[in-house]
Parts: sequence; structure tokens; C-alpha cells
Amino acid sequence: MKLVLLSGGSGKRLWPLSNDARSKQFLKVLESDNKGLQSMVQRVWNQLKENNLSNSTVIATSKSQVEIIQDQLKNEASLIIEPFRRDTFPAISLAASYLYTFGNTKLDEVIAVLPVDPYVDSSFFNKVKDLEEAIYRSDTDIALMGVRPTFPSEKYGYIVPKKDTLDFSKIYKVKSFKEKPTKECAQDLINNGAFWNCGVFAFRLGYLINFLKREGYPIKYDDLLKDYVDLPKISFDYKVLEKAKNIIVLPYDGYWKDLGTWNTLTEEMQSNQIGNGILKDSENTHLINELDIPVTILGVSNAIVAVSPDGILVSDKDKSPRIKEIVSEFDTRPMYEERLWGWYRVLDYKKYDSKEVLTKRLMLRAEAHLSYQYHLSRTETWTIISGKGIVILNDKIINVEAGDVIKISLGDKHAIKAITNLELIEVQVGIEIIEEDIVRINDNWSEIMELIYN
Amino acid sequence: MKLVLLSGGSGKRLWPLSNDARSKQFLKVLESDNKGLQSMVQRVWNQLKENNLSNSTVIATSKSQVEIIQDQLKNEASLIIEPFRRDTFPAISLAASYLYTFGNTKLDEVIAVLPVDPYVDSSFFNKVKDLEEAIYRSDTDIALMGVRPTFPSEKYGYIVPKKDTLDFSKIYKVKSFKEKPTKECAQDLINNGAFWNCGVFAFRLGYLINFLKREGYPIKYDDLLKDYVDLPKISFDYKVLEKAKNIIVLPYDGYWKDLGTWNTLTEEMQSNQIGNGILKDSENTHLINELDIPVTILGVSNAIVAVSPDGILVSDKDKSPRIKEIVSEFDTRPMYEERLWGWYRVLDYKKYDSKEVLTKRLMLRAEAHLSYQYHLSRTETWTIISGKGIVILNDKIINVEAGDVIKISLGDKHAIKAITNLELIEVQVGIEIIEEDIVRINDNWSEIMELIYN
Repeated sequence: MKLVLLSGGSGKRLWPLSNDARSKQFLKVLESDNKGLQSMVQRVWNQLKENNLSNSTVIATSKSQVEIIQDQLKNEASLIIEPFRRDTFPAISLAASYLYTFGNTKLDEVIAVLPVDPYVDSSFFNKVKDLEEAIYRSDTDIALMGVRPTFPSEKYGYIVPKKDTLDFSKIYKVKSFKEKPTKECAQDLINNGAFWNCGVFAFRLGYLINFLKREGYPIKYDDLLKDYVDLPKISFDYKVLEKAKNIIVLPYDGYWKDLGTWNTLTEEMQSNQIGNGILKDSENTHLINELDIPVTILGVSNAIVAVSPDGILVSDKDKSPRIKEIVSEFDTRPMYEERLWGWYRVLDYKKYDSKEVLTKRLMLRAEAHLSYQYHLSRTETWTIISGKGIVILNDKIINVEAGDVIKISLGDKHAIKAITNLELIEVQVGIEIIEEDIVRINDNWSEIMELIYN
Repeated sequence: MKLVLLSGGSGKRLWPLSNDARSKQFLKVLESDNKGLQSMVQRVWNQLKENNLSNSTVIATSKSQVEIIQDQLKNEASLIIEPFRRDTFPAISLAASYLYTFGNTKLDEVIAVLPVDPYVDSSFFNKVKDLEEAIYRSDTDIALMGVRPTFPSEKYGYIVPKKDTLDFSKIYKVKSFKEKPTKECAQDLINNGAFWNCGVFAFRLGYLINFLKREGYPIKYDDLLKDYVDLPKISFDYKVLEKAKNIIVLPYDGYWKDLGTWNTLTEEMQSNQIGNGILKDSENTHLINELDIPVTILGVSNAIVAVSPDGILVSDKDKSPRIKEIVSEFDTRPMYEERLWGWYRVLDYKKYDSKEVLTKRLMLRAEAHLSYQYHLSRTETWTIISGKGIVILNDKIINVEAGDVIKISLGDKHAIKAITNLELIEVQVGIEIIEEDIVRINDNWSEIMELIYN
């Protein structure tokens, strides 16, 4: 059995902590067993390890999340990287073709697909294992996991079973699906034994490979990757699941929660406060503060106060799901990003008539480096503020440490490698400052060094 | 008649907008008649001008407020500067000795003392003028202004009049004072005709000069200034007023308010929002945001959300007066300061094991300059991000514009003068970064230029 975790898109429902570069699954707000805080992705990965499933798991994600996943999971996970953001049908198909081509996976082997961020008990993953046996014993195309509902939610999708279980107990054939019903309808569904659809399902690899063949798509990974741009933006549910004739559902009775909004997320936080600040006379209020400046909350109950370099949210908890629609008009530069080499934070940004100025603090981990590159429309000044490193400027090597200043003019080729953890302040000045104004000469440090010495 | 405005200390009741460098009277949150926002000081100064009183007014203040007052009042006010922060008795005595020594003020002339920030109608200042005539006609030592109370406040001081008015109507002899009574007691006081003490009083210059003489203090300005450190930290109320035998009170029936806390201040704001952000479903909530990042408030009513480089406050309005006690333990570097040459904002501060790093954005107004100086324990990097200017570095003149970088090593003599409005990013790196680590060579630009050319 193989597992495919889907690591999805940005989502603004947890603004200002989630942004285009940091989806909700990467926010470190959950208590971990040992010490410190962990993200939803880290929590799930640890649960997979506990259940001996991590070695048979791949994560399907997009380019923009590669660095943060590798960082948070310490390079332990195998990634399948979508070249463009599509929907779940293309993403799962790419993962299937990868397993078919390179994954040492037989066509008869069962593939289970999971979101990367369910908030569940460890027993959930035992139930995932059961999907395999259920597929083999029932000889059905697709097996779903159904969560036993605890209240008539209007936000979830429901799986409606047929009345009779299969001969081996507690597995039902699926009769139909119902998305986001009214409360009354949800109660009716629950009375008739319906389950919440938690987005977990399994099938034999051959089932999807044959489906792709029938539809005329390539099944070899390299070919599918090449044609990826032509795949339809469509969900797996819509393209495959809803048309399948032969589906079963396994009930899961344990804890399950979608931590997609501030009110559900804060329910799972152990402490009412993360970061610098004071909470006084405020019942059931949560503070998450990623800035250095203190936050004082006085006499405001049932609220979430979330502070990040991107913005500040002060919201009543019950109303917090509406944040998505309100901030959808914000389209700002991410103010904090984790990268494979470390992270950066935007300290200041200003647009003048004829130019823009962006000031950042960067942290490069020891041994990490930035690629050898130059810019066509901005100058940069680096002031090293801590640590030691090596700068390459127009093919010359310069040893740097705290206090040193490097001025990078238009077209100057430059790179930096950290010897110890290294921090610097970068001031970018240019007519237009865009991420794309990077001409990369080389990203491999040994090759960069060879370039210079030859 | 002369007026002395007392511009008092820091006060944390309007945290995070007020700090050691910016007391509440300098916050620009009040609507002005023409356009934009004005501070309490600016509002009072404009009212003094309307009443032709500004030319006979001096402002008694401390060193730390000189630059912000000169900036906000466009150098129109005469300042009397306390060398150290003392209490109101020393401050008023220094002002009196100044008027006695240099102010072309006769001993018989009346001096009226006012706080710098009462929120009042313009008619208030007519009543201030009436204090003069009241002193002369009643031949009393001290005349107070009494505000007709509108509710039994427990926060204010009360002036209790004797029953009979003086022969010219509406002036009362004072019987006693009562500070911060209980609500019941306050109601009794009001029923007996008591007034709120708004801190406005008047006396003949000779009265205080004679008082100083009797107590053995110098009366010449230079002498008093020299002995200032030895003056007792005591209020004028306690040292003089409460011991005076012969005091009258003039009732003022107009609008008066002490904008000392967030709940009273926001009542006088014309708009519910200053700065970047969105207010939704939030009744009677005010937002003041001095940062560039957006603030979203959703479904939180009767609250004040105040955001500055120093911190973030989210408080129920009724509870907001308690902020003073809560933040009294905060003792942080001011993150924003207005100076005579412009302003600076702290973008980033970090303390490492063996050093500190402070990153600022500075704005120098056209023609303004920093003094010629050097530092003994920090290096600085300036990246000019907008405008044009002249840098002097170790006696050499360098023309600079956006994109230029100046590296200032330990002991390097440096100054900068703005030709146009000029902004720069300054990165300070040092073992210990303190304001006092400035060795000033000269602050006068012509003299600096002479120094260099000779």
C-alpha cells in the first residue's frame, strides 16, 4: 500500500498567518509531544511515522511549497511536484503515474489519498490501513473513509451509505454524495447513517492507470509531466469518484477535525497565547503574535488576535470564517517566507514615484547559500549583522562577518554562502522590484566555485 | 497677562501610541478645521492664536519634548526648558523666574498657568482672560478656573466654593479641595456647587517671586536654572495652592474634557478609523494604525485597537484606563520619534550574544541635517533610498542620492544634510547600542563646513 498526501493551495481563511507562500498546513501553532510548536504537516508526518507509514508515503505538492515542506519535514518526505497548480485530478494522476513509473508499485497495489492536514487521532491511520483490505475483500473500485458526524454541519460533504452492510461487518456500499447541506438536511442525513467526507479514499493503482489510458492521457510520468499544462483543472471527486459505480465506505469513529478556520484551529491550541504579549480579563480569547512588538489584550472575550508581518486580525471567533471574503481583495507581497536556505522577513517597503525600496532581514542556515545571480533593475546592499560567510561578487571571493557591507550594483554577479548561521539586512532599490528579476547563473556551489577558479 | 502652558510627562495611558518620546498631547488624532489631523498641542495652540493669546504664551517643557513641540508648532512658541524632569512647582517657578528676568513682565502682571492639552471650546480661553480681571478686582492671591461638572466623576479633583459669591457676580471664594472622591461623595459635592479642577490658575508674578524669596530660592532665571537639580519634586498644588489663604474660583460652563484615556480620546475622534485597515460588524470600535500593514477588525464592538511601532493594543473601551498599570512594566526603546530634522522609525532590533543590531528608516526634511558626530561602540551603514543630499565622512564631502551606500566605521566622523527630502535605511551594529554613544563635534552646518575647509 502506498499513501499520497495532497498538500493544497494557499487559502486566506487563516489570514494574516497564511499567505501565498505559507498555507495553513505550515503554521506552527499546535503543541508537539516533545517540545515547542509544530505545524499540521509536521503533526501528520509524525503520526505516519508512528504508524510505520511514512516510508510508503509521497507528498504531491506544487513548486512553491517544496522548500517549506523540505524544511519542516527535514527532507524526510518524497515529493511529487506539480509544475503548475492544477486541481486534484491532475495532481493525483501525476502521483499515480510517478508510482507506476518509478515507485516500484504494482498495478494491483492499493493507493490511499489523504489531505496533508487532517487533525485526527493516531487511530485514524490504522483505519487508513484497513482501506487496503476492504478494497481486496470487497473487490470494489474505490474505498472511502467516512467520519461519524458529531453535529449537523453545513460546511462538510456527506457520504450516504446503502442500508445493508457488506457481509464483513461495518463496511457499507455508497449510495450517494451530498455537499454542504442545510442544517435540517444534514440532520436527516445523519439520522440515515451518513458520514462526513474527510477526503480520504483508496483505489488500486491499476484502476486510475486504466482510467487515464481510457481518457487518452499518457501514463508514463515524464510524458504526463510534459503534458501537465493540458490537463483539465478539475477535481478527482468530480472527474472520477462521482462517476465510479462501485464505491464503499469505512466508518471512522475517532476524532477528526478540519482546522481550516480560526475558530476551529484555536480550539486545538493548548495555550491561549503564542508570542509576545499580555492577555487580561479576556475569556476564550487567543493571541498568536509573530512580530517582536508586544500585544496587549484587555477585556476582549471570544476573540482571535493574529499578528504577522502581513497584517493584524482582531476578530470575534464565531465571525472569523468570514475573514476569507474580506481579505480576498488584499493582494500584497508576502512579508515572511521560509526557504530551503533559511527565511526572510520584509522589514519595510515603500513605493516612490520612480522607484521602489524593499528592506529585508535574511537568515541563512550554516552551509546554506543563495544562487549566483544578478539583477537587471535593482541594486542591493547587504549589511552582515551576524555570523560568518563567503560572498562572491563579480567572480571575486570575499570573507564576510558582522558589520561588513557589500554593495551590489546593477548587473553585479553575486552569491553568498553561510559558514555559521548568518543574518543580513538587504536593501533593494529599483524601478520595479519583482521576484522574477533574478538572472540565475548557477545554483550549485561547487560549480560556482569551479566557474570562478577557471 | 502672560500664559504658561505646562507640557507634562510621558504617561502610558495611551500606550502604544504614547511613549517616552511622544506624550499624549502630541498624538495627531484630532480632526482639524482645514485638513488632516492635529494633535492636542496643535489644537490648543490654534485656539490661543484665535484668541490673540499665543504671543503672550510660553511653554514650560523638558528637553525631550523640545524637538517635537518646535516641529508641531512650526517654531512659533517660546519654550522654557527644564534641564531635568521635576514636578509642577519647579516648572512653574522656572517659568516665573524667566518672565521676571527676561520676559518684560512686571511683578503686578498676572500669570495664568494651563495644561498644554485641555480639550475645550474656544470660549474657555475667554474665561482664562477673565482670571486677570478677577485677580485685580478681588485682590486675591490665586484665581482658579472651575469647570461646571456634568456627572459625578471619581477621577477628577473638586474645588469646593464658599456659599456666598463675591460682590461682582459669579466668582466664589474657595473653601476647600477634594481629590478623587467616591461617586456618592462626588454627587454631594456637585449638589453643594463644587467644580472640577481643570488645572488652570492665575496669580500675580510678584506673588510667586515673593514666595520663592521667602523659601530661600533664587529668583533670577540663570541662578534658578543652576540650582534646578536641588528643587523639590513637588506639585504646585501641594507646595503653594493648598497653603494659600486667599483663593477664588471662576466658573466655566462650556465644554471641557480630559483626553487622557483611550475611551475619552476616541469620543472626540471624527472618524472611527485612522490608518490602513478594515472595520466590519464592529459597533463603536475605533482603529488607529500607524503601521503600513493592514488591520482587519471583524465583529468586535466597543473596542479600541491601537497599533504603533511600539506595540498593539486591543482593549474594551471601558477597561482601557487600566492600560497604564499593565504596560508600566514594559520598558522598551521608542520605535518612532519625531525630531527637528524629521523622524525615524525602528524597523528591526535584535540582540545577539555579543552585540546588538538596530535597523531604522530615517526621513530628513529638505535642508535639515544631522550633527557632525562619531560613535565609539557601533558601526553604521546608510543606504540612501530617496532624495539627494550631502554626506560628510571624515572631513570629505560626498554627494549622495538614492542607491548610494555609506559605510561608517568605528570613530568615523560623519554628518548628512538633505538637499531634497531624503530617506535612508540605517543599520547600526555594535556591542551596545545606546543613544548616548554619540560624540558630537558640531551641530551648526556652516561651522561644520568651515571646519572642513580649514
